[in-house]
Amino acid sequence: MKFEFETIGVIHSPFKEKFGIPRQPGLVSQVQATLELVPPFNRPKAVSGLEGYSHIWIQFVFHQNINRDWQPTVRPPRLGGNKRVGVFASRSPFRPNPIGLSVVALDDIRCDSGKVELLISGVDLMEGTPVLDIKPYIPYVESLPEARSGFAPSAPAPKLVVHLTPPAEKQLESMLDPSKLRKLIEAVLETDPRPAYVGASRPDKVYGIRLYDWDVRWRVRDLTAEVLELVEAQLKPGKP
Amino acid sequence: MKFEFETIGVIHSPFKEKFGIPRQPGLVSQVQATLELVPPFNRPKAVSGLEGYSHIWIQFVFHQNINRDWQPTVRPPRLGGNKRVGVFASRSPFRPNPIGLSVVALDDIRCDSGKVELLISGVDLMEGTPVLDIKPYIPYVESLPEARSGFAPSAPAPKLVVHLTPPAEKQLESMLDPSKLRKLIEAVLETDPRPAYVGASRPDKVYGIRLYDWDVRWRVRDLTAEVLELVEAQLKPGKP
Repeated sequence: MKFEFETIGVIHSPFKEKFGIPRQPGLVSQVQATLELVPPFNRPKAVSGLEGYSHIWIQFVFHQNINRDWQPTVRPPRLGGNKRVGVFASRSPFRPNPIGLSVVALDDIRCDSGKVELLISGVDLMEGTPVLDIKPYIPYVESLPEARSGFAPSAPAPKLVVHLTPPAEKQLESMLDPSKLRKLIEAVLETDPRPAYVGASRPDKVYGIRLYDWDVRWRVRDLTAEVLELVEAQLKPGKP
Repeated sequence: MKFEFETIGVIHSPFKEKFGIPRQPGLVSQVQATLELVPPFNRPKAVSGLEGYSHIWIQFVFHQNINRDWQPTVRPPRLGGNKRVGVFASRSPFRPNPIGLSVVALDDIRCDSGKVELLISGVDLMEGTPVLDIKPYIPYVESLPEARSGFAPSAPAPKLVVHLTPPAEKQLESMLDPSKLRKLIEAVLETDPRPAYVGASRPDKVYGIRLYDWDVRWRVRDLTAEVLELVEAQLKPGKP
């Protein structure tokens, strides 16, 4: 049986591309984003009462993974990228139905001149992610601290120290509000977002991760993520 | 934007109709059910590794509520059925996209002669519910005991004492395994599943709730749910 669903909202996030996005929500609590309801769902009434909740569920579409063939097994990054587990035993975006599920903190609700926006944080969501549903998080039902968890029983420890080279430091300090981008760079790079299969084989490779409107260029040396420079990704006014 | 998704599994549950289904998962932990993967998703590999998790998320379709118009507000039963809140601040099945989300206990996985079945408990799911996705529950991300919860901060207290009349008691005791049905009857009726708007206005009304293959007939008197009789709902062999 097939079912058709409609986008009710869209995510605006500092993550402009897949690379570097935290692998679970909450891991990078610094990451703030916006969920904007789209017409005809942009009704302030539809979110009335949601302000009583500190956290919400977002059910969304991994929109870059639609129309892909599904595979019964996947290689989770937490297992080093070379051990396979069943797709339903993983949170991989490559699923038979590419529906994602994230719990995020609800910081504020803004209803202004036809716009209805939820300000959220701790997101692992990419810019432009289509949202299918929003639900309140109900701790007495959904908080199960004693639940047994397979291959990822606890949050991953930071893997890298993050260091900005003098040129990158200078660029950052010339911004109006450097602290937001600094925190995000540190939080994202300390998790070592390099693909698991690269590892030590290409020690000098320079990576670029787009955060807000900046292309952050970095490489790894001696367990340190070295930020080389920040390149303006677009001709739009720099953010943050 | 619209997206189409396919059924990957189907629920087999003692709840054969909507009336009487617990309003959240986990409220009636006695309720056991089965999630059966449907072709081409019935591959044992697709659930390999899931046995390491005690709980799973089920994303499913409220299939009796598709093609309904959505309303920006709903009346949650927990507020007595007369106060309205935004549909996205509720877990109501009447949503713009009728996608449900339940955490359930995973008791066992059975892969046998082409069938792949997950044995689950604590369900609030009706017989025949189409499943869109299964994901492991990850406590270090999803267990948030300190989360603030709006109008339903804790589990509802039992509202009714459950009493079986002598004829109902006799019928129950004549069954092969009466304890499963007895526990389910008690767990379901003590929550007072009557619609909130009925209340005291029709004190003598007799209700029927279908559990397994039995139509359980009951009424409420003096805060007691009085079970009058058990009627075999079908000519199939009686269960449990």
